[in-house]
Amino acid sequence: MSRALLIVAHGSRREASNEEIRRLTERVRAEAGDSYQSVSCAYLELADPSIPAGIEQCIDGGAEEVVVLPYFLSAGRHVSLDIPQEVEATQRKHPGVRIRIAPYLGGADGISAMLLDSAAEDRG
Amino acid sequence: MSRALLIVAHGSRREASNEEIRRLTERVRAEAGDSYQSVSCAYLELADPSIPAGIEQCIDGGAEEVVVLPYFLSAGRHVSLDIPQEVEATQRKHPGVRIRIAPYLGGADGISAMLLDSAAEDRG
Repeated sequence: MSRALLIVAHGSRREASNEEIRRLTERVRAEAGDSYQSVSCAYLELADPSIPAGIEQCIDGGAEEVVVLPYFLSAGRHVSLDIPQEVEATQRKHPGVRIRIAPYLGGADGISAMLLDSAAEDRG
Repeated sequence: MSRALLIVAHGSRREASNEEIRRLTERVRAEAGDSYQSVSCAYLELADPSIPAGIEQCIDGGAEEVVVLPYFLSAGRHVSLDIPQEVEATQRKHPGVRIRIAPYLGGADGISAMLLDSAAEDRG
């Protein structure tokens, strides 16, 4: 199955923060190997592309499954309501494509182990 | 050497977000084994303890080294200026204690691999 990964960040008025998401997306793409036909990013607000536009780009590129990964720290309204609403609206337009929301960053299983690894790096 | 880990989050008016940081801190503590004599959290603003108070608690508990881990996604002013300033002010009061700032979450080496692992979990 042709699968796309879409990293969804909040978006910022500070362009450097949006650029940081694009650089992270490039790193993820480089590490993804052939797990995904594409790895891209979208923003909930304040930057482009929007979530629906980001998903549409994945589908236009031939994705049969889109994995939406919320790059958020806490399970607030954005993660629990806003992102699912945007995803559902786009899903209704494309019933033949599977769109799945992965765990948000702060709720991911691996985060505590990663924080411990990061704390042990001696580059402070 | 007796070492303490202090996870530093932004802090929120939404108490559930602050509580989420405390639960994350518990998870990290559970996984840390005996790498740290203590694992605790502090907030830059809007919640207690503050960063200086959190560091002081580590030192009162006997820590000779305090690792400050910024739980932030982007390298903005909070990460580049505010947290280092708070840390330096506390460091001046305790010259015998080593206080080190670890990479912030969004800049940690392991984040891209962790995102890929998280995206692969099938619980969407």
